[in-house]
Amino acid sequence: MYSASSLSSSEVSRPFLTWQRISDWAQEHYRFRTFNKDERVPARPGLLYLVERGAIRLVGDAQVSPAEDESTPGLAQMNAEEAFLGFVGAGQPFEIVAQSPFSLQSFAHIDQTAIIWMYWHDLDNWPHFRREVLDAFRYQHQRKLLWLSTLGQRRTIDRLLGFLTLLIEEYGEPCEQGYYLPWLLTHAQIGSAIGSTRVTVTRLMGKLRQQRLISHYGDNLICIPAESVNKVQTIASTTTTA
Amino acid sequence: MYSASSLSSSEVSRPFLTWQRISDWAQEHYRFRTFNKDERVPARPGLLYLVERGAIRLVGDAQVSPAEDESTPGLAQMNAEEAFLGFVGAGQPFEIVAQSPFSLQSFAHIDQTAIIWMYWHDLDNWPHFRREVLDAFRYQHQRKLLWLSTLGQRRTIDRLLGFLTLLIEEYGEPCEQGYYLPWLLTHAQIGSAIGSTRVTVTRLMGKLRQQRLISHYGDNLICIPAESVNKVQTIASTTTTA
Repeated sequence: MYSASSLSSSEVSRPFLTWQRISDWAQEHYRFRTFNKDERVPARPGLLYLVERGAIRLVGDAQVSPAEDESTPGLAQMNAEEAFLGFVGAGQPFEIVAQSPFSLQSFAHIDQTAIIWMYWHDLDNWPHFRREVLDAFRYQHQRKLLWLSTLGQRRTIDRLLGFLTLLIEEYGEPCEQGYYLPWLLTHAQIGSAIGSTRVTVTRLMGKLRQQRLISHYGDNLICIPAESVNKVQTIASTTTTA
Repeated sequence: MYSASSLSSSEVSRPFLTWQRISDWAQEHYRFRTFNKDERVPARPGLLYLVERGAIRLVGDAQVSPAEDESTPGLAQMNAEEAFLGFVGAGQPFEIVAQSPFSLQSFAHIDQTAIIWMYWHDLDNWPHFRREVLDAFRYQHQRKLLWLSTLGQRRTIDRLLGFLTLLIEEYGEPCEQGYYLPWLLTHAQIGSAIGSTRVTVTRLMGKLRQQRLISHYGDNLICIPAESVNKVQTIASTTTTA
């Protein structure tokens, strides 16, 4: 998938050589907490967060939208809509920089999600680790550009399949039928990511299943055939600044 | 907009203290080239690109989509659609990591767009600059999360207004009516970013103008009233790892 030499997926998903020391430091300094499913992680701008275990769900709130009718020129209505913006898996960093007219929030996506937090200057002790964190953000940025590519497609079914493919490329785990997303995602959450509704997502998921482009795995997890997935096993070593 | 202390916008848009030295180095080493409007910048994975002057337009290609009908189960059709993924302005870095089923490309958005390129290890000479580049990618990543937030909205007019607001927050220049985007963007390009068509964008732009949420500036540039724009004049100093 990438043209250059590669790094194993375990290194990508947990690219931190000094991880154990960071984890010990976080425990000692009370910079560690475990969250339950759907519990909000009260992330503040200026702090860096690391997922030690579990998964984080990033969500965006759009707060302003034009009036439904044309009776109130110049006035935009409040019309909060939550959008699913992706996962942050174990070993990955995240940060939240709140910004109007949109705000970002983070939630534990599964039980026992363990989070470490620190100030950026705490990383002065681990310059190599700092670089790995910054490289992880570069990688996440590239993934979001791909995500924007799929959301630019006009047909909702194209956006849906592209969205699922990108998620499973990044987080999928192997199964008999291909690769499956190891976390549940509701049709409403999927709809909120691709600019559609729960009802439409349900209908189009059925269509994709009929075309055998997706299937169920286990307890309602989403699976994609191996040949459709360019599993993110490799990342160009050239994307590492080290 | 950000809660913490701030950095001036000129520092954000050109955050490179050693810029002049880099520019001289690029000229000496033939790592500098000027592109005409809409000329493709042949960016390769593993290299880092810097916009010295002008603006880059990032574009994504989605190459695969499900079949229109249900006669070909398991087969996805080729259906190339280009999506506008944003600008990279003067002083900003970009990189392209090609990845199926989507590929990213970069084009000069205006004439006389000047680009410097280098290998990441070239930055070994300028460790402070490297950190600024990585911080710039962190910032771009946060902006893309906001962009994803607006694309998650169901109504096309919401996506359109959110999209324009985010672009003008970041790149807008002041004018009598508010802030305007200093570059032309076709309705087809806007449609390709928000999952809509040229025709729909034209209709909804008219509606937004009627509601006085946008206006024209000069030669068909898009303007947003000052009160709608949280102009990106500030970025939390805490987002800087320095």
